[in-house]
Amino acid sequence: MMNWISKNNILVVGLGLMGGSVAKGLRRLGFHIEAIDKRQSAIDYAVENGIIDKGYAYPDETAIRKADVMIFALYPEVFKEWVAEQQHLFKYGLLITDVTGVKNCIVYDIQAMLRDDVEYIPAHPMAGREVYGVENADDGIFRGANFIVAPTEKNTPEGIEWCKGLGKILGFRKISVLTPAEHDRMIGFVSQLTHVIAVSLMTCNDNTHLVDYTGDSFRDLTRIASINEDMWSELFLLNKEYLLQHMDSFIREMSQFRDLLAADDREGLKDKMRLSTERHSYFLAKK
Amino acid sequence: MMNWISKNNILVVGLGLMGGSVAKGLRRLGFHIEAIDKRQSAIDYAVENGIIDKGYAYPDETAIRKADVMIFALYPEVFKEWVAEQQHLFKYGLLITDVTGVKNCIVYDIQAMLRDDVEYIPAHPMAGREVYGVENADDGIFRGANFIVAPTEKNTPEGIEWCKGLGKILGFRKISVLTPAEHDRMIGFVSQLTHVIAVSLMTCNDNTHLVDYTGDSFRDLTRIASINEDMWSELFLLNKEYLLQHMDSFIREMSQFRDLLAADDREGLKDKMRLSTERHSYFLAKK
Repeated sequence: MMNWISKNNILVVGLGLMGGSVAKGLRRLGFHIEAIDKRQSAIDYAVENGIIDKGYAYPDETAIRKADVMIFALYPEVFKEWVAEQQHLFKYGLLITDVTGVKNCIVYDIQAMLRDDVEYIPAHPMAGREVYGVENADDGIFRGANFIVAPTEKNTPEGIEWCKGLGKILGFRKISVLTPAEHDRMIGFVSQLTHVIAVSLMTCNDNTHLVDYTGDSFRDLTRIASINEDMWSELFLLNKEYLLQHMDSFIREMSQFRDLLAADDREGLKDKMRLSTERHSYFLAKK
Repeated sequence: MMNWISKNNILVVGLGLMGGSVAKGLRRLGFHIEAIDKRQSAIDYAVENGIIDKGYAYPDETAIRKADVMIFALYPEVFKEWVAEQQHLFKYGLLITDVTGVKNCIVYDIQAMLRDDVEYIPAHPMAGREVYGVENADDGIFRGANFIVAPTEKNTPEGIEWCKGLGKILGFRKISVLTPAEHDRMIGFVSQLTHVIAVSLMTCNDNTHLVDYTGDSFRDLTRIASINEDMWSELFLLNKEYLLQHMDSFIREMSQFRDLLAADDREGLKDKMRLSTERHSYFLAKK
């Protein structure tokens, strides 16, 4: 009953880069995909390019009523409002999942308000590109990437397995299960802190005259410095507690390194570098 | 007289990754390449793999006397000592250049002590890999990279042109001329600061349990976190003044970002992100 074959009608809500990429991957697998996005241009593009079968620039009642599965790719706050307003239309037994990059602040709220017969299994497909919009949708970004399922005690084992199945059929390299809090702490470090660093490196002084001199290391560190300010400011604010902890720990560490350098403490600098090399070897081994 | 055809005998001193890569590129172009490195194993490897014609694990007098050009790829302090000890053997009119990643602290010292008939034109081929040693030598790393010539008022226009020619024949994308101070300030930002950031990200907490969850952004930011602690601690200490300025400016900027987040200042965060995206566009345009 929870298997993927029986869930034919999939409705994607929010057709940006992630919603579009998920739609593209699922349609390629033979599912019937409809989508709702307030931008008519996104819908038109997706239909013309075979990313979805059909789409609506408004919450179409028929489309919502017939969906067996709904996948939300909206900003967190909009996601909550949308569910609150439209859930009276949901099919009995509907399965919901999402692609939202923060979990703690939405998962419990949505599960608390949701109809008893509908299950929301939180997920975060950890993939992305530096570009935005359904025009850049690409289900190839899932290959080699991580898919996180972040259930609560309200979720059923069957729902969790079903959601892991979504990650599998979309081609993710690894599927993990974390609590919402574990997810948010992790994502604060590996994704949000790295974006803060890239932004700070671009904004700490006017470096544009250095464009001719940048090598691989600078380009690597700033690849993510072109940043969608609406999405990321919301994600940062919604994960503020963990992100502040990580930023404080990073700033403290870098200040320590600074003081070692100021004090000409060559051995102290080398100790830090050795630890860095040692830890990095774990990541290299897993690549 | 200063052209590359007439300078047949090239002696590379220091046969690590950079010395080896330069040797490989020049030998491919038909020059006779000899090398000196204290590790016999590096010499053996380079001869067996056609990277050099001949090599010595000691300062061979004949090899030094016959060189028309010497290229130094030693640690800064060792470079200075080597020139002081061996320059009585240098051929009349010898041209010297180097690959050293810091300039201010060595260029003036070496030029001041150097015989009047010998010209040292400082250079920094801004290329590298995360691996070390002549065993990883690869002149392909020069393609697309920047070659910096960092002359002083002691250098001749002919010497500077000759050195720019080295960058050209090795296949660098762009050749620039900067003063030693401009070079060191620039390199402190685009290369050294980025390495400090990568190291601090690895050392700020034990993140190895996150190995399963890292995406592209974390991998990009830590690609340079495997770091040769002897070389980089020396480079950092020799460029301490500029690097501390850059670190202080980066830490100040990130602390500002932190305070905006702590104060829920969404517009302030967005302003930083917009500035980052705008500046990054210059770098993207130049890629």
